[in-house]
Amino acid sequence: MGSSDNIPVSGQKVIVLLSGGVDSVTAFYAALKDYTVACALSFDYGAKHNAKELECARYHAALQGIRHEIISLDFMDRLFKSDLLQSGAEIPKGRYTQENMKSTVVPFRNGIMLSIAGGLADSLEATGIVIAAHSGDHSLYPDCRPAFMHTMNRAIQAGTGEAVSILSPFLNLNKGEIVRLGTSLGVDYARTWSCYCGQELHCGKCGTCVERKEAFVQAGVCDPTKYSL
Amino acid sequence: MGSSDNIPVSGQKVIVLLSGGVDSVTAFYAALKDYTVACALSFDYGAKHNAKELECARYHAALQGIRHEIISLDFMDRLFKSDLLQSGAEIPKGRYTQENMKSTVVPFRNGIMLSIAGGLADSLEATGIVIAAHSGDHSLYPDCRPAFMHTMNRAIQAGTGEAVSILSPFLNLNKGEIVRLGTSLGVDYARTWSCYCGQELHCGKCGTCVERKEAFVQAGVCDPTKYSL
Repeated sequence: MGSSDNIPVSGQKVIVLLSGGVDSVTAFYAALKDYTVACALSFDYGAKHNAKELECARYHAALQGIRHEIISLDFMDRLFKSDLLQSGAEIPKGRYTQENMKSTVVPFRNGIMLSIAGGLADSLEATGIVIAAHSGDHSLYPDCRPAFMHTMNRAIQAGTGEAVSILSPFLNLNKGEIVRLGTSLGVDYARTWSCYCGQELHCGKCGTCVERKEAFVQAGVCDPTKYSL
Repeated sequence: MGSSDNIPVSGQKVIVLLSGGVDSVTAFYAALKDYTVACALSFDYGAKHNAKELECARYHAALQGIRHEIISLDFMDRLFKSDLLQSGAEIPKGRYTQENMKSTVVPFRNGIMLSIAGGLADSLEATGIVIAAHSGDHSLYPDCRPAFMHTMNRAIQAGTGEAVSILSPFLNLNKGEIVRLGTSLGVDYARTWSCYCGQELHCGKCGTCVERKEAFVQAGVCDPTKYSL
């Protein structure tokens, strides 16, 4: 039986949640090293930036020759309340930790993605789900916090007859440390997407763009991103 | 904060998982009495019997004037492994508890449905999700067992910032007791669907048909179902 800690079991078959952002692309490359990756899994849930993200997810899965599934969750945009969605209001500008970024929470998004990944993993006889949740995610998003990851891991274990577990190797890393790790793995960060606004270029102003910029500074790595300002 | 126990909080706003089967239709009528029902939620996940079930779900929601959402999870039929699905092999005949009924497990189905319900409940400012999991469900389906319901409840609470909880009022009832309760609430069981085979009439032979028949016997209530034999 696996667990939600960081110790890779050599040869363990996993699926990787691959959004196409900095964190999940890094987790994908780390998983290729540490596990047998049966599938990379992405979701199109009607977020403003999904098209740009998915383009990056597709690129890396194809480059590495890994099966890639994109699951449409179009009901989210239709029924859920969040400014991250196409049905929502404009994305707020400013740092990620400000009160107004709360409007970008998509209720229980990670829970939904992990649950679907749990069912798919079980169907593919994979025993782990790799998710790139990290220490910088925790303040605003309840479904990114360690307490959630631990209970969700228990729920997936119980609900699959102990067949599948969540692996969250970045839970104690910050985004700078993730970029440093990915750089050592040769990740091309020019082919990752963060900006919530989903325009042609990264806006450079929204919370997730601010965090992206800071991560490269923290990592001491050149930021290959073209910002619109 | 709610919990997964059976004590209704008067006026609490809930959503109800309404498949259209005996158990969930009963839970829907019980919830109408005990709570404020914001929405009945059904899923079309490519099961052989979904069309027949959903017809029943639609009927009861419309009859009671309750908002009804049907969410398509077509990826399950495409990617998941289960004989319950249209992509699967034939439904086995015989009692529900036999080994061969394991082939009808849809991996983590309840986890996926509860997660989506969690996000929708939070979006609608409802604080509870009513699910009709009952004591007879437990042996074969890991995601119906009390241990799963309790951990999944904790995961949904944690992942929604303690906004939403699972309510599983039937966890300690058997199917006969559910039918007895529903009968006292005036539920028209002729408008509920159980059979996994999804033909015009209930087959009367598959595990869920056997259980359905037994429930009416246990309840001492006339079975209004037309079986094909």
